[in-house]
Amino acid sequence: MAWNTNLRWRLPLTCLLLQVVMVILFGVFVRYDFDADAHWWTERKHKNLSEMENEFYYRYPSFQDVHVMVFVGFGFLMTFLQRYGFSAVGFNFLLAAFGIQWALLMQGWFHFLEDRYIVVGVENLINADFCVASVCVAFGAVLGKVSPIQLLIMTFFQVTLFAVNEFILLNLLKVKDAGGSMTIHTFGAYFGLTVTRILYRQQPRAEQGETEFCVPVGPLCHDCFNSAISYHGDSQHRAAINTYCSLAACVLTSVAVSSALHKKGKLDMVHIQNATLAGGVAVGTAAEMMLMPYGALIIGFICGIISTLGFVYLTPFLESRLHIQDTCGINNLHGIPGIIGGIVGAVTAASASLEVYGKEGLVHSFDFQGFKRDWTARTQGKFQIYGLLVTLAMALMGGIIVGLILRLPFWGQPSDENCFEDAVYWEMPEGNSTVYIPEDPTFKPSGPSVPSVPMVSPLPMASSVPLVP
Amino acid sequence: MAWNTNLRWRLPLTCLLLQVVMVILFGVFVRYDFDADAHWWTERKHKNLSEMENEFYYRYPSFQDVHVMVFVGFGFLMTFLQRYGFSAVGFNFLLAAFGIQWALLMQGWFHFLEDRYIVVGVENLINADFCVASVCVAFGAVLGKVSPIQLLIMTFFQVTLFAVNEFILLNLLKVKDAGGSMTIHTFGAYFGLTVTRILYRQQPRAEQGETEFCVPVGPLCHDCFNSAISYHGDSQHRAAINTYCSLAACVLTSVAVSSALHKKGKLDMVHIQNATLAGGVAVGTAAEMMLMPYGALIIGFICGIISTLGFVYLTPFLESRLHIQDTCGINNLHGIPGIIGGIVGAVTAASASLEVYGKEGLVHSFDFQGFKRDWTARTQGKFQIYGLLVTLAMALMGGIIVGLILRLPFWGQPSDENCFEDAVYWEMPEGNSTVYIPEDPTFKPSGPSVPSVPMVSPLPMASSVPLVP
Amino acid sequence: MAWNTNLRWRLPLTCLLLQVVMVILFGVFVRYDFDADAHWWTERKHKNLSEMENEFYYRYPSFQDVHVMVFVGFGFLMTFLQRYGFSAVGFNFLLAAFGIQWALLMQGWFHFLEDRYIVVGVENLINADFCVASVCVAFGAVLGKVSPIQLLIMTFFQVTLFAVNEFILLNLLKVKDAGGSMTIHTFGAYFGLTVTRILYRQQPRAEQGETEFCVPVGPLCHDCFNSAISYHGDSQHRAAINTYCSLAACVLTSVAVSSALHKKGKLDMVHIQNATLAGGVAVGTAAEMMLMPYGALIIGFICGIISTLGFVYLTPFLESRLHIQDTCGINNLHGIPGIIGGIVGAVTAASASLEVYGKEGLVHSFDFQGFKRDWTARTQGKFQIYGLLVTLAMALMGGIIVGLILRLPFWGQPSDENCFEDAVYWEMPEGNSTVYIPEDPTFKPSGPSVPSVPMVSPLPMASSVPLVP
Repeated sequence: MAWNTNLRWRLPLTCLLLQVVMVILFGVFVRYDFDADAHWWTERKHKNLSEMENEFYYRYPSFQDVHVMVFVGFGFLMTFLQRYGFSAVGFNFLLAAFGIQWALLMQGWFHFLEDRYIVVGVENLINADFCVASVCVAFGAVLGKVSPIQLLIMTFFQVTLFAVNEFILLNLLKVKDAGGSMTIHTFGAYFGLTVTRILYRQQPRAEQGETEFCVPVGPLCHDCFNSAISYHGDSQHRAAINTYCSLAACVLTSVAVSSALHKKGKLDMVHIQNATLAGGVAVGTAAEMMLMPYGALIIGFICGIISTLGFVYLTPFLESRLHIQDTCGINNLHGIPGIIGGIVGAVTAASASLEVYGKEGLVHSFDFQGFKRDWTARTQGKFQIYGLLVTLAMALMGGIIVGLILRLPFWGQPSDENCFEDAVYWEMPEGNSTVYIPEDPTFKPSGPSVPSVPMVSPLPMASSVPLVP
Repeated sequence: MAWNTNLRWRLPLTCLLLQVVMVILFGVFVRYDFDADAHWWTERKHKNLSEMENEFYYRYPSFQDVHVMVFVGFGFLMTFLQRYGFSAVGFNFLLAAFGIQWALLMQGWFHFLEDRYIVVGVENLINADFCVASVCVAFGAVLGKVSPIQLLIMTFFQVTLFAVNEFILLNLLKVKDAGGSMTIHTFGAYFGLTVTRILYRQQPRAEQGETEFCVPVGPLCHDCFNSAISYHGDSQHRAAINTYCSLAACVLTSVAVSSALHKKGKLDMVHIQNATLAGGVAVGTAAEMMLMPYGALIIGFICGIISTLGFVYLTPFLESRLHIQDTCGINNLHGIPGIIGGIVGAVTAASASLEVYGKEGLVHSFDFQGFKRDWTARTQGKFQIYGLLVTLAMALMGGIIVGLILRLPFWGQPSDENCFEDAVYWEMPEGNSTVYIPEDPTFKPSGPSVPSVPMVSPLPMASSVPLVP
Repeated sequence: MAWNTNLRWRLPLTCLLLQVVMVILFGVFVRYDFDADAHWWTERKHKNLSEMENEFYYRYPSFQDVHVMVFVGFGFLMTFLQRYGFSAVGFNFLLAAFGIQWALLMQGWFHFLEDRYIVVGVENLINADFCVASVCVAFGAVLGKVSPIQLLIMTFFQVTLFAVNEFILLNLLKVKDAGGSMTIHTFGAYFGLTVTRILYRQQPRAEQGETEFCVPVGPLCHDCFNSAISYHGDSQHRAAINTYCSLAACVLTSVAVSSALHKKGKLDMVHIQNATLAGGVAVGTAAEMMLMPYGALIIGFICGIISTLGFVYLTPFLESRLHIQDTCGINNLHGIPGIIGGIVGAVTAASASLEVYGKEGLVHSFDFQGFKRDWTARTQGKFQIYGLLVTLAMALMGGIIVGLILRLPFWGQPSDENCFEDAVYWEMPEGNSTVYIPEDPTFKPSGPSVPSVPMVSPLPMASSVPLVP
């Protein structure tokens, strides 16, 4: 089908409209949190607090890492696609910029309303980044076949659903999910995969480019993710240790499986990169619990095996049988590890005991015997599982609705043969040698009956010259 | 003109001389700050301070980010130039290494003199990095047509002028400028643009290379910049929130304007990257004030529009009419956003009220009714504007003088046709395929009358092979 | 010689076996440190501690940087090798993942045993990363001619020896080495160089590729390395200042020497990159001592000169005369600067005085007059030198033994003509244009008598087309 991909008026108007609405809503609703307000000085004296006791100092180092990861990291994880680097980085940036504003509002209304204002501090900023991380995950599933307008629409709905789901889990079901195995990764992955299923097209496959610049960003990402919004003190401390251990074990078993499944025992870089992320995701929910270092190793061990098997067997199956095109492998990176994380969290919570946590520790970690009377470790474990199921249901239902909305024909989506093509939406630099620019990709006579022209990138051609005599 | 670009004795002697002088001056003047001195332990016990109450812990996370940004980040922002990547990164490194030493001394004499010693702590390190950031900005304006010796000279003078300007603003005019909109960005940009105007040559245009590796480093950069030297507690906290908001809004409006100005509605990666920096710069001065989150959004909104318009209309105008070659677009990235930031700071300060800040908050933020008697919010606003005007005057005058000094013929500058050419000053690796090495660029018979030889990079040639049949 | 490089069963079994052993040993020995245990809350109330007084907050920002550096940074430092980028990054990742687990155990048994458990907190994590950093340094010496199995074996032995050496230095000789000049850099460099000497082969030289993506990561690396495990407060603070100063001076003198040694005065990027690391290494041992800022400048000054001279004269000499192939120049980056660092530490310790440190400061820094009776600054200096000598002896002896083990023929090492070739152990992406994939490199008829086939990468060929008419 030949859609009009000229976004000259649609995109600017969408962006400006959204931003004007944001300014108005922020003006009406958003104020500084007490710790970020100049009145803090008055109260601080009364309470005899040290300047260090400002929430900022507990969270700032994690915040920086999370924020950079969301704005830049996710985009770069997807630059392995030849001729789609601009879109991967640039669109990720666009959706993050809108998403964090909308997330501050949505999460604010649910969690941070004081009087009639949303009070914003560094914890909100991290939470908004987390919410957007979930959109970034889903972006990995739909990238290549959507326009920036579609991404803004998807971001709007996904952030809304994320906030509702988070409210149900954390406030109604009293679920613990500090690292976001369920709320971020499971939700983002299955929401995105559902949307991409509905947007299914037999487009030319994305060409993979220079994978070697795809950094294994896991260590950067997950130590900070899992400890960023844990409780102060021992919980943040424990989250860092557990993530560190899980990730290490996950790398070793991924290497093992990757080599064992290749007929000459060779390794696949994609599996190794994946391991650095999957290991962190799988320990997300239980990261701040008393999982024990060997427990974290066991989770990493299992996750490395399952996730790598997923890459080899599950991804091709999803595409050929279920028509789910998982270009970036997010099912193996976020979906399966997220489910593992949710289950591990339930088991760990269900086996919490007075002996392991101590009385204050137990109250501090789960709030048993606090406001939750008659609450036991088993109950907590049961509700953790309910949380996982709610998350999956929300992701599937939400994904279907949003997918159908995105199928409407006036969002400027690329035609089938121009999927995964930067030049549709980006002004390409002339001197840029790694990207092939077709004459005018957006105006080619194209339709489902015309065979798609193979788009050859210049470099593989150069290397087809016989090199070894 | 054919200058001698062989720096074999000039560069080594300059570097060694500067370093020996630095060692002597540090020996005579520089000691550790109290918080970095082993005597701290004696005092700490008396004052009953926690180990955490060391200035180090308030500043270290920000310091790390600022330091990496200055040493590495700025250099990488400029690697989009084909065949000038070595110089962009390497020269940035050289000027930073000398600049921070000289800045520690200059800023120390003005601000941190105790007894007869400059006392150095993590705050000085950040301030020195800030000062050098201003030189990095100016480097963006002159790069391609200067030698490393010229850069060292420029650094020497610019750091000196920066310190004088900073002293006038902060100490004499009592101006607030935590994020350095005026002192760093406005000063750096207009100083650099003045110098590049005086060094004007009709050199072959710099070829742009692989922009896709040009990361949008804004989020890394500006959250830390703006909060790094704010006051402890709520001020640092607020600075992070304001920057986060401004940056997000700036991205959306930049996308809007970028798309609206292209005849097919396509986006330009340069504008998007720019937005991530400009939005942070524009909120610099007011970052630690009670700007309110919606205030930050409005600033980002406006800055995204003006800055992108600047790229499209102003940069070509500056080059064709005023002979100001703004290769990296620093006028749009730092100049205009810096002025916006200065004005916003003045307005925000002028509207400070007892109600919004509280008594302690007001004293803590602006020191009204502290040592500044008869000082009102309006006075503060007025002086903020004076500060901006002084900065512009210093940048222009300083730029003219330094530009004239750099025009002297014996600094080893490249000839006109060898501008933007790594091979003039760098030993190029033989196997390096992305850089074209002319036979011997420094000894070509060259003069203003000889037409400049077009230097073709190998890769565009390869891609001129017909690819789609 | 033609070894079998198909690792299909050997590598998976090795990885799985190691990981299972780790899980068991962690289960038997490893528990959370008190500050990371949920019981912390009980004790905290009794002791009336602030939440901020958790060790986590003192170390976390440094830990993040160190961890990223070890997992990702070292690998990327080595990606300058054409066609060996996958191995540099991927193998570094593998050895780090195993190494940190084994290091947590080894260092735990020596230093963190409480009751019969190793208690793990953020300090252990940093120490394990440091230990692995030493393995990464040695990896730089052997890369290109070893298989992943050999790397795992080397990691096992080197971590063990590192822990023994560290125990002798820190616990028996009471040596101070906060930045690890001796324990990390000297040990890692000379261990690796000894191993590579024993594995000597006349393989085709590694081709250097796109150096321009080789970031000068020094600033990222060393500020955090040197302050990460220093004592709280002034020591961490001082370590950051000293490293900052040393690094700056080192860059200036490196530029001077690099230019002076080139016949046209051109600079070499390798020397500049090197300077950013060497300057940090040389100040490692003394970083937390009262070295004074000018002292740090002097060390950087000297190290920049010696290290750059090493690149120009020593590396070729080592290869041609001693058959030590130092591909990455680790002797100049870690070996010599490490020895300089050890000596500087000894001198600085020997000249410690009551006047400079104050009584509490002296006890806090060196523990004189604490449990060490009759201990003077001179004694400390003497033992620092003993520590350096022990380290060198351990590195040489250990290197010989491990080198001989690695020479056994069944570890899957590459044949001589396939050294520095990713395709031996990695499944290469088809679309990847920067890496040349020979038909099947692992099954070529090959032996010492067959002349090695030159492996041409496609890009230099493309650039051999005449470009300037």
